[in-house]
Amino acid sequence: MSRVVAENYSPNRDSATVPFYTMDFTNNHLQPPLPTSSASATSPTLGQLLKRVGDVRREATGDGSETPVHQVLELGSTNLEVPRSIPFVLSFNNLSYSVKIRRKFKLPSIIPRRSINSLGAVTDTDPVGGESLFTTTKTLLNEISGEARDGEILAVLGASGSGKSTLIDALANRIAKGSLKGTKTLNGEVLESRMLKVISAYVMQDDLLFPMLTVEETLMFAAEFRLPRSLSKSKKRLRVQALIEQLGLKNAAKTIIGDEGHRGVSGGERRRVSIGIDIIHDPIILFLDEPTSGLDSTSAFMVVKVLQRIAQSGSIVIMSVHQPSYRILGLLDRLIFLSRGQTVYSGSPMNLPVYFSDFGHPIPDNENRTEFALDLIRELEGSPGGTKSLVEFNKSWQNLKHSRNGGSELDRGGLSLKEAISAAISKGKLVSGATNNDAITPNSMVPTFANPVWKEMAVLSRRSFMNSRRMPELFGIRLGAVMVTGFILATMFWQLDSSPKGVQERLGFFAFAMSTTFYTCADALPVFLQERYIFMRETAYNAYRRSSYVLSHGLVALPSLIFLSLAFSALTFWAVGLDGGLLGFLFYFLIIFASFWAGSSFVTFLSGVVPHVMLGYTIVVAILAYFLLFSGFFINRDRIPPYWIWFHYLSLVKYPYEAVLQNEFQDPAKCFVRGVQIFDQSPLGEVPTSLKLKLLESMSKTLGMKITSSTCLTTGADILQQQGITDLSKWNCLWVTVAWGFLFRILFYLSLLLGSKNKRR
Amino acid sequence: MSRVVAENYSPNRDSATVPFYTMDFTNNHLQPPLPTSSASATSPTLGQLLKRVGDVRREATGDGSETPVHQVLELGSTNLEVPRSIPFVLSFNNLSYSVKIRRKFKLPSIIPRRSINSLGAVTDTDPVGGESLFTTTKTLLNEISGEARDGEILAVLGASGSGKSTLIDALANRIAKGSLKGTKTLNGEVLESRMLKVISAYVMQDDLLFPMLTVEETLMFAAEFRLPRSLSKSKKRLRVQALIEQLGLKNAAKTIIGDEGHRGVSGGERRRVSIGIDIIHDPIILFLDEPTSGLDSTSAFMVVKVLQRIAQSGSIVIMSVHQPSYRILGLLDRLIFLSRGQTVYSGSPMNLPVYFSDFGHPIPDNENRTEFALDLIRELEGSPGGTKSLVEFNKSWQNLKHSRNGGSELDRGGLSLKEAISAAISKGKLVSGATNNDAITPNSMVPTFANPVWKEMAVLSRRSFMNSRRMPELFGIRLGAVMVTGFILATMFWQLDSSPKGVQERLGFFAFAMSTTFYTCADALPVFLQERYIFMRETAYNAYRRSSYVLSHGLVALPSLIFLSLAFSALTFWAVGLDGGLLGFLFYFLIIFASFWAGSSFVTFLSGVVPHVMLGYTIVVAILAYFLLFSGFFINRDRIPPYWIWFHYLSLVKYPYEAVLQNEFQDPAKCFVRGVQIFDQSPLGEVPTSLKLKLLESMSKTLGMKITSSTCLTTGADILQQQGITDLSKWNCLWVTVAWGFLFRILFYLSLLLGSKNKRR
Repeated sequence: MSRVVAENYSPNRDSATVPFYTMDFTNNHLQPPLPTSSASATSPTLGQLLKRVGDVRREATGDGSETPVHQVLELGSTNLEVPRSIPFVLSFNNLSYSVKIRRKFKLPSIIPRRSINSLGAVTDTDPVGGESLFTTTKTLLNEISGEARDGEILAVLGASGSGKSTLIDALANRIAKGSLKGTKTLNGEVLESRMLKVISAYVMQDDLLFPMLTVEETLMFAAEFRLPRSLSKSKKRLRVQALIEQLGLKNAAKTIIGDEGHRGVSGGERRRVSIGIDIIHDPIILFLDEPTSGLDSTSAFMVVKVLQRIAQSGSIVIMSVHQPSYRILGLLDRLIFLSRGQTVYSGSPMNLPVYFSDFGHPIPDNENRTEFALDLIRELEGSPGGTKSLVEFNKSWQNLKHSRNGGSELDRGGLSLKEAISAAISKGKLVSGATNNDAITPNSMVPTFANPVWKEMAVLSRRSFMNSRRMPELFGIRLGAVMVTGFILATMFWQLDSSPKGVQERLGFFAFAMSTTFYTCADALPVFLQERYIFMRETAYNAYRRSSYVLSHGLVALPSLIFLSLAFSALTFWAVGLDGGLLGFLFYFLIIFASFWAGSSFVTFLSGVVPHVMLGYTIVVAILAYFLLFSGFFINRDRIPPYWIWFHYLSLVKYPYEAVLQNEFQDPAKCFVRGVQIFDQSPLGEVPTSLKLKLLESMSKTLGMKITSSTCLTTGADILQQQGITDLSKWNCLWVTVAWGFLFRILFYLSLLLGSKNKRR
Repeated sequence: MSRVVAENYSPNRDSATVPFYTMDFTNNHLQPPLPTSSASATSPTLGQLLKRVGDVRREATGDGSETPVHQVLELGSTNLEVPRSIPFVLSFNNLSYSVKIRRKFKLPSIIPRRSINSLGAVTDTDPVGGESLFTTTKTLLNEISGEARDGEILAVLGASGSGKSTLIDALANRIAKGSLKGTKTLNGEVLESRMLKVISAYVMQDDLLFPMLTVEETLMFAAEFRLPRSLSKSKKRLRVQALIEQLGLKNAAKTIIGDEGHRGVSGGERRRVSIGIDIIHDPIILFLDEPTSGLDSTSAFMVVKVLQRIAQSGSIVIMSVHQPSYRILGLLDRLIFLSRGQTVYSGSPMNLPVYFSDFGHPIPDNENRTEFALDLIRELEGSPGGTKSLVEFNKSWQNLKHSRNGGSELDRGGLSLKEAISAAISKGKLVSGATNNDAITPNSMVPTFANPVWKEMAVLSRRSFMNSRRMPELFGIRLGAVMVTGFILATMFWQLDSSPKGVQERLGFFAFAMSTTFYTCADALPVFLQERYIFMRETAYNAYRRSSYVLSHGLVALPSLIFLSLAFSALTFWAVGLDGGLLGFLFYFLIIFASFWAGSSFVTFLSGVVPHVMLGYTIVVAILAYFLLFSGFFINRDRIPPYWIWFHYLSLVKYPYEAVLQNEFQDPAKCFVRGVQIFDQSPLGEVPTSLKLKLLESMSKTLGMKITSSTCLTTGADILQQQGITDLSKWNCLWVTVAWGFLFRILFYLSLLLGSKNKRR
């Protein structure tokens, strides 16, 4: 099958741009017959074509060293002169999208609703018929049409709120199916959502990267996640090196990304790394939401220059941009100016002067064209008529241009979408293990994910370790918090005695110590929250399974939790004078470790559901306080009102608290109230010992049993009984605590499943 | 005296631009002889001149309505054609500033040190002789010279890290005296730090504004703080209206500033409001650090247009700017390009093409000049020789220009600095109550602050109330937290009995409840932190006294604290079944109110010392946990190890905890252990009641006193004794709690005094 691909779709094999995976696979005869090989060779389905990529990959790596991979890797920069042989045309027609806005105390907050299909196209923000008193419909996109071609950059321009990002989202299929109207076609065929996911990439505006990894490491991890497993590590490294070259990041390759506390690469370099991560598999269509925002002019120019190189390697690049500088404008091939969701200009930057002078507002010499256009649009928006005149003018101007040029979609060289894609693939495009083409042919052998679970977990864990090892201060802070609290508890409850007061103090110590383990876990919340965004970006394009992430997240936490537990238990066990010797200590250590595990799972789960740090922290603190209140320490289990007993069983603190109490008091030989100590906590505590002894004697007589000053009156078991700790054994408490930890990890997984669908509705 | 001012320094009285406060004061004969009137009328000291402003103000407002204030207020826009009559020239020569950078694990973090005078001028970032292995000296400014004139905008340009902001800081006197070398002169006279504070304003890069106030209100509050008290409210309002006009904010005047949760004015409008606040008193020199950053081109243009208007009203405007658009460039009169702390160009934008073509890199037609220049500089920075050639070229070019033009400082019309300033004052400039000229003539009668303390407090309180009334959700969240916890506690500890177990539970309830009041105060931390930045901006130019802020801050908090206390105490007192009837409730309410007061003062203090929210919240939670641990609940006072007893007395929770315990248990008639209940918590608790009665009888005999089943064995006083609560009466506990609140407010005040010196060292 691969031979078919090579013969039919690689017309360029002799040119300088020998593609990534096409070479030499005619030599390969080991390939088994494929289940779908019965399909006609002259008209294969797309699924078959994509499957071939997988085969080709396997072959390419099977071949070994003679594959001239490095030649393709420079394809981006050397391809400029070669005529484009795989023409792609993305056309979109009459894209419209509206949301309902709820009115609320005159302070509108945008709450989009699901079903607004029935409303039809509405104009502007004016209320339309059929809507309630409390909502207005706002049209974010109003019949936007245009087209983008491979080798070109299409830029969407407009003021804030004009609909730039919405249009990018609409094209990148980040708006739910029902809400968006209009058609999107690629090479004349309707562009399916799943197909788009396979052949495109979307670069978000924020740079969500691990701060302590170097540029090279960051891209290498992206390669490990996204490039097929069959590709050897050395080849992935070559691809990364070529990408670094293409992105102009050679000088920064060994520098860490950095954050507020750590000096790293510049903003422009960081942006290029973000782009690099998303194009590591060389997609056919690249969407970018304001890739230049926040960058200075030189950095912005270099980013767009990189985008131009990507386009010229055979991709369609579509981006929104706020206000391109003169030099950036020179790199853009097509512009769409939006104003309040409507097109006010669409065409080449070259035509801007003609367009605006035809409209009656010629651009003065020496004036920046886009600035002038944006200002004029803004002026019109402020005027009574709005931009209506310009919208109308644009329509007639487009019609004129169309009638002059004839239809524009006919000049794409006769290749159908499937042909074009398979040709692109054979040229080395779409080097992705994450092609997710299950959706297209469910039987296909190209896997949804590039790697198996174990490999994903290994890579994720390695990355996580690498990042945190370079930020020792984060673990240091947690260790410090645990050690300080441990030290205070150890000295405060130094060598507690076994008197009734001592018993009460032991209870207090245990309650406080068990809460501490949970509270210190809350310190990890910011790190988890930060990581979550990276996770969302990466899983959006199937870089790895969510389950692998959850598993590796839990796994990576263990070593540090063991260390924290050991520090805390060693610091307090002997200092407070707890019972049980080495075995007692071991259980004490285990239950503290279990608490840390449950607490960190709980905080991890919360990091999956709360939107930001402050709220998360407040919630953690409040819930832990309630856990402590209901643990059984403040009110024994048998005294908790029946309507609250369910919360007692939900309390995470209950289980470790009961476990340590049992560990402490279960020894039947240990005595806590002996002889005259029976009067210690009673009104008779103040009478002289001789009188107490006499009292004991008289009581002995009445009870008919001998009570001397050495008779044990209360054992540990009695104390457990008094505290209502009777329902679970200490080992069961341990298992329940561990189980809570796993439960919260599962809930975390579910929250990730539900929470990471970042589409508009 | 005022007549002298008018006669000598108001040559323009007949022109259209009649100044703000000069008119009509020749009519005024009520003015008493002044202590400094003995000074020569032809050569008054500056202090005297500034004092006159105060007099003039008093007169102007004494005169009443015929003062044509509105004429001056339009001075900014109408003054364009009038020749500038009060020339100001700010010159700076050879400004140099270096910091030592500590080397640390190869991740450099900038820690400036105080005394680097002895080092002499150093070049670039290379290490110089005499420094240790662990520090390098970095030169942020290297002999920068230039000048700025009234009516003009001087813009400082350069890449990030080139020293733009440092130069602005150096000129605005935000670098400590010892560290900065070189001279700054105004009209040829050395510019003293105190003088500069009087005649200048500094606009920070961030917009720190109350989100829920309208534009007009924001500016009106600024007017109330900064314009002299003697000025009537209606005149302040006129000044604000004129300013709104000047800033182009007429359409936005009634719109709130807004924040993430509340839709407000646009970014450009917000920036203009920030500028408006700082120029409400019409300063002679205005410094701005990147006033256009983060704005789109149109907004940025409008901001600079406003700055041009301000300059043309007779001010010197000095700003740093990242990359001005073509149109903004047209508004700038002088440019200084910096590269790594060195001047690479200095002059008019007009001369840029000549300069660069002389240098051998002509600017192509149609290319943005500043973009070209910045890119060329960046290219040179990356080259082996660096920008040295351009720096040298600039020096020779400057010399050439100088020799061509002759000295430029001679054409300022012969006015000395004092004459120029007094002339500017008489033209209505410097309408400030915050002239702070104590520093210049300590005996002067012009006050440092525009308003007395009571007035400042009233205005601050009004503003704070206004802002929080429009954000009811903030109070709602706190009330919700208190109510939820109150409800849980009320139902959990529902109608506690008076058995020994009930007593133990009461102790737990009190400990938890008192901690809750403190914890809920932590929710206010973000608001306080946000306000602190506004405070720092405002007190930097003496808008009001720090003490007024601290007092009003405490005062404003009270009503909501009363409400929270009432809600919590009413919810729990009767539900739990606490003792003391109405009087008991009143004390309970008072002590909870005192806790809220102390807690909110504590959090306020922390907001004055911690750098950001997360850290603050973590610290509050940890410290409150330790407070609870040491309160006496977990370990009674008499059992706390002597080396920790000091912390027990520091514990904020101790005092309210002891107070409520005393309130609960002080009734000597109330009995908590009666007859056979003595055995409840002991090993004998399980024996039948009849046997218990027999035991009582036998004990009675031994003790020689009659104990029946109704004999009270433990009163509340006994319980207090057992808990070690003996050192303070309940009223003393209340006063101590209240006193803690005041102590933290004082500490807050001190933290503000120490923390708000925002100068570089």
